[in-house]
Amino acid sequence: MRATEVDWLELCRGCTRDLERILHELPTRAEREPVLGAGEGGDDTTAIDAAAEAAVVRRLAALDTDLTLVSEELGTRAFGAGGPLTVVVDPIDGSVNAKRGIPFFSLSLAVAEGSSMHDVSFGYVYDFGTREEWVAERGRGAFLDGAPLEDPGPKDTIEILSLEGTTTDAIAEYAPVMRGLARRLRVMGSLALSLCHLAAGRVDAVCCLKPARSIDIAAAQLLVRERGYAIELFEDPPFAKAPLDLVQRSRVVAAATDELCAQVAAALR
Amino acid sequence: MRATEVDWLELCRGCTRDLERILHELPTRAEREPVLGAGEGGDDTTAIDAAAEAAVVRRLAALDTDLTLVSEELGTRAFGAGGPLTVVVDPIDGSVNAKRGIPFFSLSLAVAEGSSMHDVSFGYVYDFGTREEWVAERGRGAFLDGAPLEDPGPKDTIEILSLEGTTTDAIAEYAPVMRGLARRLRVMGSLALSLCHLAAGRVDAVCCLKPARSIDIAAAQLLVRERGYAIELFEDPPFAKAPLDLVQRSRVVAAATDELCAQVAAALR
Repeated sequence: MRATEVDWLELCRGCTRDLERILHELPTRAEREPVLGAGEGGDDTTAIDAAAEAAVVRRLAALDTDLTLVSEELGTRAFGAGGPLTVVVDPIDGSVNAKRGIPFFSLSLAVAEGSSMHDVSFGYVYDFGTREEWVAERGRGAFLDGAPLEDPGPKDTIEILSLEGTTTDAIAEYAPVMRGLARRLRVMGSLALSLCHLAAGRVDAVCCLKPARSIDIAAAQLLVRERGYAIELFEDPPFAKAPLDLVQRSRVVAAATDELCAQVAAALR
Repeated sequence: MRATEVDWLELCRGCTRDLERILHELPTRAEREPVLGAGEGGDDTTAIDAAAEAAVVRRLAALDTDLTLVSEELGTRAFGAGGPLTVVVDPIDGSVNAKRGIPFFSLSLAVAEGSSMHDVSFGYVYDFGTREEWVAERGRGAFLDGAPLEDPGPKDTIEILSLEGTTTDAIAEYAPVMRGLARRLRVMGSLALSLCHLAAGRVDAVCCLKPARSIDIAAAQLLVRERGYAIELFEDPPFAKAPLDLVQRSRVVAAATDELCAQVAAALR
């Protein structure tokens, strides 16, 4: 199939159905938690991560299209002749939640015509807890369950700040510097979903306390940007030029405006 | 109707249907956020809190049974001749999440034959995000969507600690003292749901950083105790004698064992 003929939303929905089945077959942490090794992205690969990625890889292989896959566990892999068309996947964003059964984790899949964040033209994030489907298409907008995201958006002063990178050490270090900047905190455990919540105005800012990888944000950032909100890899700008790879280069912040992003980034420095 | 004839689970499910309708009619924070006054429980009463409580009150009135209601916004109210049968309601536990649209908030309803925590015989917590139904009956167990909760339960060392009482100030103060005690934190925004997650082994400990009210915990504590796990109002023990009222007397901690509860409580002091 030619890449232009692929219905990416249908592909993603097929992946979601596969992952729902895998979750059903691995119901508790007894099945989900065993660590099989370390992924190319640096985190432990659990049974559920491995099964989820295998399901996505099967779907991509069945397309019979030239593309480059960048994924959490496998790293970079060419399908067919490889080439500029790039699919960026985190099969389970929020792996700790998934293995413990906390219903806040997602499939994140982005499609790009090249190798940098600027090239991302399609983003899909599926919440396995609420079954919400978040989709963005470059230039066409951001959608929740098929309906365009609308105002009210995030607030210009931060009532709720979502922190990701959820170790006690990191939160103990950075919660104090957020005093005066954010009234309340949330620590939910899926960066992709937290960015979607920002795009929908459910939270007012998001920051990841450890350097983020492109695979964690490639899909959700398109929802944020299609809504006109700000996102920055402030330790390695500019955002648009970030390579779609597994390297952790910078922490990420997102909020309604560039000014608010800069304030949060300044607090994190 | 005599109190012994009431099907409390059916009553709760009716309340849930009413609240689902209210949420649908008040879809965004523009409708949900306006503050109408201060509830008897001390928090602001938003449009969504008031509508949710009114719906529950209508259902209780329609029972035509003598009972005492203790509820977030109204305080204590006698139905019929009042009396020892006590219904403890938080119509929306996680009001901030509800008004912002973060899909992690719940209806919490407990039934007691008297006026203290020990008397609670039925607990119901409904998650409006995932649509999970958490139920406990004293002496009969704890259930998720009708199935008994089973092992694996929470861990004996804390991988995930849920903090409630979600201001930045409180988390900045207490996250540092949890270093070495808990590897990761979650700050989700509904104490009732976090206690249900403990009962299901999704998290390993829960603590509320501000003094809890009985209405926030009366239903979910029965899930925790039916599973054999520990919960304590450590600043005003013993737990079983806590009055079912709106007074904030103590912070609450819960975990797999009394020892682990005591460790978390010691860190909070």
